[in-house]
Amino acid sequence: MLEQLKAEVCQANRDLLAHGLVVGTSGNVSQRDGHSGLVVIKPSGVAFDALRPEDMSVVDLQGNVVEGPYKPSVDTASHVYVYRARPDVHGVVHTHSPYATTFAIRGEPIPVLTTTHASLFGGPIPISGYAVIGEEEVGREIVAHVGDGTSVLLRSHGVFTIGTDAQRALRAALYTEECAEAAHLAMLRGYVEPMAPDVVRASREWYLYGYGQQPVGAGS
Amino acid sequence: MLEQLKAEVCQANRDLLAHGLVVGTSGNVSQRDGHSGLVVIKPSGVAFDALRPEDMSVVDLQGNVVEGPYKPSVDTASHVYVYRARPDVHGVVHTHSPYATTFAIRGEPIPVLTTTHASLFGGPIPISGYAVIGEEEVGREIVAHVGDGTSVLLRSHGVFTIGTDAQRALRAALYTEECAEAAHLAMLRGYVEPMAPDVVRASREWYLYGYGQQPVGAGS
Amino acid sequence: MLEQLKAEVCQANRDLLAHGLVVGTSGNVSQRDGHSGLVVIKPSGVAFDALRPEDMSVVDLQGNVVEGPYKPSVDTASHVYVYRARPDVHGVVHTHSPYATTFAIRGEPIPVLTTTHASLFGGPIPISGYAVIGEEEVGREIVAHVGDGTSVLLRSHGVFTIGTDAQRALRAALYTEECAEAAHLAMLRGYVEPMAPDVVRASREWYLYGYGQQPVGAGS
Amino acid sequence: MLEQLKAEVCQANRDLLAHGLVVGTSGNVSQRDGHSGLVVIKPSGVAFDALRPEDMSVVDLQGNVVEGPYKPSVDTASHVYVYRARPDVHGVVHTHSPYATTFAIRGEPIPVLTTTHASLFGGPIPISGYAVIGEEEVGREIVAHVGDGTSVLLRSHGVFTIGTDAQRALRAALYTEECAEAAHLAMLRGYVEPMAPDVVRASREWYLYGYGQQPVGAGS
Repeated sequence: MLEQLKAEVCQANRDLLAHGLVVGTSGNVSQRDGHSGLVVIKPSGVAFDALRPEDMSVVDLQGNVVEGPYKPSVDTASHVYVYRARPDVHGVVHTHSPYATTFAIRGEPIPVLTTTHASLFGGPIPISGYAVIGEEEVGREIVAHVGDGTSVLLRSHGVFTIGTDAQRALRAALYTEECAEAAHLAMLRGYVEPMAPDVVRASREWYLYGYGQQPVGAGS
Repeated sequence: MLEQLKAEVCQANRDLLAHGLVVGTSGNVSQRDGHSGLVVIKPSGVAFDALRPEDMSVVDLQGNVVEGPYKPSVDTASHVYVYRARPDVHGVVHTHSPYATTFAIRGEPIPVLTTTHASLFGGPIPISGYAVIGEEEVGREIVAHVGDGTSVLLRSHGVFTIGTDAQRALRAALYTEECAEAAHLAMLRGYVEPMAPDVVRASREWYLYGYGQQPVGAGS
Repeated sequence: MLEQLKAEVCQANRDLLAHGLVVGTSGNVSQRDGHSGLVVIKPSGVAFDALRPEDMSVVDLQGNVVEGPYKPSVDTASHVYVYRARPDVHGVVHTHSPYATTFAIRGEPIPVLTTTHASLFGGPIPISGYAVIGEEEVGREIVAHVGDGTSVLLRSHGVFTIGTDAQRALRAALYTEECAEAAHLAMLRGYVEPMAPDVVRASREWYLYGYGQQPVGAGS
Repeated sequence: MLEQLKAEVCQANRDLLAHGLVVGTSGNVSQRDGHSGLVVIKPSGVAFDALRPEDMSVVDLQGNVVEGPYKPSVDTASHVYVYRARPDVHGVVHTHSPYATTFAIRGEPIPVLTTTHASLFGGPIPISGYAVIGEEEVGREIVAHVGDGTSVLLRSHGVFTIGTDAQRALRAALYTEECAEAAHLAMLRGYVEPMAPDVVRASREWYLYGYGQQPVGAGS
C-alpha cells in the first residue's frame, strides 16, 4: 500500500544524510497520505543509507502500525500528534543538525540575521521546553511553539520542521541549518543586532508572493 | 537560441553547489552574451542539481523574458542593472556562502589578511548597505560599492561577484569564501592587524602580471 | 583464517575514513573472534582507502602476530589489554576525530548537553590521564576510565570506544564526535549548564529499553 | 621524459583537492627526479581536477623550463631554491589549508597539543617571516625556518611541507592541517598549555622507530 508515498518518504529520509543533516540513525521524515490519513515514517534505528521503500512503516493517526517489517521511529507518537493537531500539516522532519542544535542546547531562538532567514521563516525560529522522547510530549512542544512558522528547536534535543508535504518540511530543515550556521558563526565574533521586525516582515511578504515558480504559501 | 551559453551558465550554476557555496535553491549565476546583449540566468526556485541547459532563462537588459520555460531568478532585475551600468561586466554570481555571509551579517568588510586575498582582490572586500530583494535596488548597491573590484558583500544578505564572464565571477565567489573563512577563523582567536596597503598593492600587481597562463586583467 | 571477520574489520576501518573520523593512517578498528579469542586489527601505517581484507593482522590476546603480511597497529598492545581485562568487549575503535580531540587536548570530559548524548552514553564521556603510545599503557587508561560506558577520551590524544562488536564500537565513535561537535560549538557562545543527572538517567533508560529494533544493551 | 614521475606528481596535485587542502588553482606539489636532478611541478593557474600528467612542467634546478605545454607554477623559483639548498629533499608541497592558514595569518607557530603532532613533527610547526611571491624569497624563508622538520607556515600566506618524496611531503601537509584544526578548535575554548618538551621528544622517538612498516626517518 502507498507504494509511491513510501518511495518518496524513503528518498526524503536518505536526503537527510546526503544534506549532512543527520548522523548514524538519528532523525526521521514522515508524510501523511491526504486520502487515507495514514502516515509513512522511517523505521527506528535503521541506517539512512540502507533504507529501502519497503522498509518504511505505515501507521495510523494513533501511531498503530498498519504495515511495515520494522518498529516505526521512536518519534512516531510525536509525528502523529502533530498531524492530529494540525490538519494543514502533511510532512514532518526531525534532525539534530549541528548548528541548529547549538541553539537548542543553549535554549535560544535563532535570531533573524539575514534576508534568507527573514524570507523563509518570517521571524526568529522558536525554542520549545524540554520534552521526554518516546511519547507524544515532543509533539505537544512542537505544536505549542511552532506557531504559524515551519521550524522549531526542541530544547536540548534538535530540530522539528513541518510543511504541506515532506519535501517542504525537508526544505525548512535545510534552511534552518543554513540560518543557524550563519547566525552562530556571526555571533562568535560578538553581539549582532537582529534585523528590525518591519524589515523582516517586508522580506517575508516579498518571498511569499514573489519567489519561485508559484505562490509558495505559509507552509513552504 | 544561445545554446552554448545556456550550457555554460547551467554548468556554472551547478558548480555553485559542487563548491559548497549554496544551499537549497538560493544563489545564481548569469552571463551576458557579448553579441546580442541578452543575458542567460538561472530560473527562480529550481534546485541546482536538477538544472538543465534548457531550463535557463534568457532575458534582455531590462529583464524581460525572451526565452525559457520558467520565471527567471528573483535577482534578475539586479543582474541586468549591473550589466547596464557596467559594460565591462559579462558575468555575475550570487551566493550565501557561509563565512562571507558572517561579514555581511556584521556589516564588516573582509580585511586583507593573506597574500591570496591581496593578490586576487587587491583590498578589503567591501560591504554594501541593506537592499530590498526583487527589484534593482540590490544591483544599485553592487555597482555603488564594488568599485574596481570583483566582489561585494550585500548587507545582511550574501555575496555578489562580477567578472568578464561567468567563470571569472565564479572564481571570485570561490575565493571570496576562502578569504572569508581564513579571516573569520583567524579573527576568532583575537584581533589581527590587516596587511599594510603597500604590501597588498605589491602582491596584487604581481598577480595581475605574473600569475596563470596569460595576463588576467582586473576582472579575473 | 577468520576470513569473514577480516572482511568486516576491514570494512569498519574503511568506514572510519568515510565518516570523516580519521585522517591519513591514524586510527584503527579491531574485533575479537568469540570462538578462538583471536583479534583482527588494522596493520600499522597503511592508508584506510587502500585496506583489503587480506591486509588485516590477526593477533592473539598477548599481541603476538598469528597471521597477516604487515606489522599490526601500534595500538595492538592496548587493544588486547582491553580484551583481556574486559571479557564483555569484542570491538575496539580508535580515532582522532576533531571535536572530541578538543576535549582530549583540554583534559575535559564531554558534558551531557543533548538527549542524544544522554541516551547513547548516559553521562559525561570521561577523560583519561596521559599515556605513552605503543605499549599497553593506553589500554590501562581506557579500562581505568571507561567505567560502564562505551567511550573514553585519551588525554592529549583522541578517542577510544568499545562495544560488543566492532560495529557497535564504531557507532559509539560516530556519536562521540557528534556529541563533541554539538557541545564544543554550543560552549563557544558561553557557559552552558549540563543536563541534570536525573534527566540524563531517564533519557538513557528510555533508550536502552525503547529504541531500535531490539533491546540494545549497555554495550551499544 | 619522466613519464612515471609526471603521473605521480599529477596525482599528488589532484590529491590536494581530494583532501580539501586547496581551493581553486592555489597550491602545488613538485618532486625532484633523483637521477637527472630535474623537477616536475604543477603548471600555473590550472584547475586541480583538470590536471593530466602531460600538463606537468619539467624544470631544471634554476627553474628553466625543460618540458611542458604551460608556464610552471609561480612558486617554481621557491621550490627549486629548496631543492638546491636541501639535497635531502625530493618533494615539496604548498597549500593554503584553512586551519593552518589561521596560524600563518596570526604569525604564530602551531603549538604541540597532541601525541599526533608530537609524533609526526617533534615540535611546534614554525612560522616564517613575510615573503614576496614569485621569486625565490619564499624558498629562502622555508629553508631558514623549517630546520630539521618537514612543515613550515609562511607568514600571511599558507603552508609549505617537504619530504624525501612528494608523497611524504603530502602526508606532512595533511597532518599539518589536522594538527592545526585540533589546536585552533581547542584554543577557541581558552588557553591550553602545550605538551612538555620531554613528553614531545619521547613521542617523536617512539614514532621514528616504532610506527609503520619500516623505519620512517626524519623526512616522513
